[in-house]
Amino acid sequence: MIEDKNQPKTSLGNLGEFGLIEHLTKNFDIKHSTTVKGIGDDAAVLDFNKKVLISTDLLVEGIHFDLSYMPLKHLGYKAIMVNLSDIYAMNATASQVTVSIAVSNRFPLEALEELYEGIYLAAKIYNIDVIGGDTTSSNKGLLISVTAIGEAEEDKICYRNGAKVNDLLVVTGDIGAAYMGLQVLEREKQVFKANPNNQPDLDQYNYLIERQLKPEARKDIPKLLADLEVQPTSMIDISDGLSSEIMHLCKQSEVGCNLFEEKIPLDPQLISVCEEFNIDSTTIALSGGEDYELLFTISQDDYPKIKANPNLTVIGHMTNASEGMHLITRGNEKVELKAQGWNALKNNEGE
Amino acid sequence: MIEDKNQPKTSLGNLGEFGLIEHLTKNFDIKHSTTVKGIGDDAAVLDFNKKVLISTDLLVEGIHFDLSYMPLKHLGYKAIMVNLSDIYAMNATASQVTVSIAVSNRFPLEALEELYEGIYLAAKIYNIDVIGGDTTSSNKGLLISVTAIGEAEEDKICYRNGAKVNDLLVVTGDIGAAYMGLQVLEREKQVFKANPNNQPDLDQYNYLIERQLKPEARKDIPKLLADLEVQPTSMIDISDGLSSEIMHLCKQSEVGCNLFEEKIPLDPQLISVCEEFNIDSTTIALSGGEDYELLFTISQDDYPKIKANPNLTVIGHMTNASEGMHLITRGNEKVELKAQGWNALKNNEGE
Repeated sequence: MIEDKNQPKTSLGNLGEFGLIEHLTKNFDIKHSTTVKGIGDDAAVLDFNKKVLISTDLLVEGIHFDLSYMPLKHLGYKAIMVNLSDIYAMNATASQVTVSIAVSNRFPLEALEELYEGIYLAAKIYNIDVIGGDTTSSNKGLLISVTAIGEAEEDKICYRNGAKVNDLLVVTGDIGAAYMGLQVLEREKQVFKANPNNQPDLDQYNYLIERQLKPEARKDIPKLLADLEVQPTSMIDISDGLSSEIMHLCKQSEVGCNLFEEKIPLDPQLISVCEEFNIDSTTIALSGGEDYELLFTISQDDYPKIKANPNLTVIGHMTNASEGMHLITRGNEKVELKAQGWNALKNNEGE
Repeated sequence: MIEDKNQPKTSLGNLGEFGLIEHLTKNFDIKHSTTVKGIGDDAAVLDFNKKVLISTDLLVEGIHFDLSYMPLKHLGYKAIMVNLSDIYAMNATASQVTVSIAVSNRFPLEALEELYEGIYLAAKIYNIDVIGGDTTSSNKGLLISVTAIGEAEEDKICYRNGAKVNDLLVVTGDIGAAYMGLQVLEREKQVFKANPNNQPDLDQYNYLIERQLKPEARKDIPKLLADLEVQPTSMIDISDGLSSEIMHLCKQSEVGCNLFEEKIPLDPQLISVCEEFNIDSTTIALSGGEDYELLFTISQDDYPKIKANPNLTVIGHMTNASEGMHLITRGNEKVELKAQGWNALKNNEGE
C-alpha cells in the first residue's frame, strides 16, 4: 500500500522528451482500422464513417488521487476508465485515446513505466488505440490529461436532454462503493502514519477498494442495450454522485423526477461498511461519486426488455418539471434532491 | 508588463465546476457544421466526411510560460496556436478544440476570464469551435491542456516521413524571433526586479516580443499550397527549433539534408538584437524554437510554383541518408546538424 523506496530510478532528464514518449509507448499496437496514423507525427489521423465523439478529463495529484495509496499502474488504468466512461455515456463505442502527462523530476522513469503499464492494460482490455499525447515537466506532482475518441451511428447517440415525462430512470451496477473505498483507504493512511508497522487486513473491504482504485467503465452497456433493442432517451455517467447526475438529466431534459430510496442498488459490503463508519448509505449513494456506472432513461414501453437484467435497476421515473426533483424515502417521505457531489474546486486549499 | 495587483477578485470556490465551465464558455458559438454537439454533455459529437486529425499539447506554468510577463489573454491565444499549428503541419484544416485547465486557488475568476478571452479571440480569428474541456484545481499554478481536431482529404495529408532525395526544403516566414523575444522579456524581468520604477522602452523589440507572446499559427499555408497546386512530400511545424525539426523529417523519411546558412530567413530585428546580445543569429534560428512556422519538402518540379512567393523560402535540399544532415555555412564549411532544441524535461529543476 505504501510506496516502495527501493525501486530502481532512472532520471527523466537523461531521456529527453522524444526518447520518453517513444520509450513509454513502444508496445502500444494499433487495433482499429479507423486509426490511420497514431503516435509519431504532428497529429494523429483517423477515419470514421459514423459520428465522432470526443471527451477530455484532467486528473491532478493531490486533487483527484493520492499516490500514497494509489499504485501508479492503477492510476494509469483509472485515467483511461474515467474518459472511456464519458464516451459510453453517449451510448457510443470508444476507439482511441490521447494521453498527456506533466510530471515533476521526483518521478523516475520506472514510475512512468508503471503508469503506462496501467494505460496499456486498459487499452488492451477495452480495445483502445493510444494515438498521441504530450509529455512535459511540472513544478509539482503528476497530472494526466486524457482525450477519448469514439464513434456511433447518429440515431444511437444519447444526449442528456432527451428524457421525457413518465420515462423510467435506470442505473447500471451498484452505487456508492468507490466513495467508501476511498474512506477506508484514507483511514488506513492515518493508521499507517501513527503506526508504520501495522499491517492492515483489508479483505473485508476488497470490493470497495477495487471500485476506488481500479474502476471499470461500462463498455458492455451500449452493446447490451443494442442487443435488447432499447434506445435510451437520455444518458450520463456517474462520476460525481447519483444525485448530481440525476439533476443534470432533469435540468437538460426539462423534466422532474421521483427517485425511490429502496430501489437504489447497494452492494452488501457498502451497507456493512456504512454501518461501521456510522454513515447513511443512501447519502453515500447520492453524493459519493467515482462509480462510473451509467444512468439513463427509457420509455416505459421498453420496461419488459430490461426488467430481467441483473445489470440494470429501475430506480425512479421522470415527472413534469413543475413537480421538482425528489427522493421518496423508505418511510415514504418526499425529500427534495440536492446536488452534493464532490466538488474539485471547493474542496481544495491549494496555493 | 507586471501583474496589476488591483484587479477584481472572485473566488473560484464560490462558483463550483459546472458554474465555471458554463460561465467561461457562454459566448463561444458554434461555427462548423461538423460540430453536431459542443460543450454540455459527456462528450462532443462531430461529423466528418474527410479524415480526422487529432493533436494535443500541455502548457505548464513555470515550464512553458511565466505569468510575470505573459498576459493571460495572450497565454490563452498562444495555447490555441500551439495546437492548431500541429494540425496545419499535417496540411489540414483545423476545426475544433477542447480546452482543459487545472488552476490553483490563487487565481480569481477574473484571471480565468482573461485567459478565455484569448481563447475566444483565437477561436474567432482561426474559425474554431471550442467543443469541450475540463476545469479542475491544481495544488500549484496553472496548466492548460488543449486537444485540436481538424480534417483533410486523405491525399492532401502530409506526414513527416514522405521526403525524397533531391526534394527541396522550404520554410515559411522567418525563424528565431520568438526565442529572442523571450530573452528580451527575461532581461527586462531582471531589470524590473532590480528597479521596479524603471519603465522599459521595448519598441525596438516589438516584433520579437509579439512572436513570443502572441504567435500566429500558419493557417494560411495549407490553403496557399492548395492554390499553388503544390503537394508537399513531408511537413512539420517548428516548435522546437529548425535543427531539431529538420532532423525529425530526415530520420522519419530516411534521407539526409544540406541546409544553407545564408538562406535561413531572419527578420532584421532578430539580427540586430542578436548583435546586441552578442549571440550568433544562426544558432538562434537553429535551436530557438516556438516560431510555429511550417517546414516542408517539395519535389524540385514544384519549385517554379513557389519561387516568387514571399511566404516561402527554400533553405536546402534532401540528400541520401548516408550523406548525413549538414549545415553549409556562409564560409562554405560543412557542419553536422545537431538537435539542440529546447528540452522541457531537461531544463526543469522542479520538485
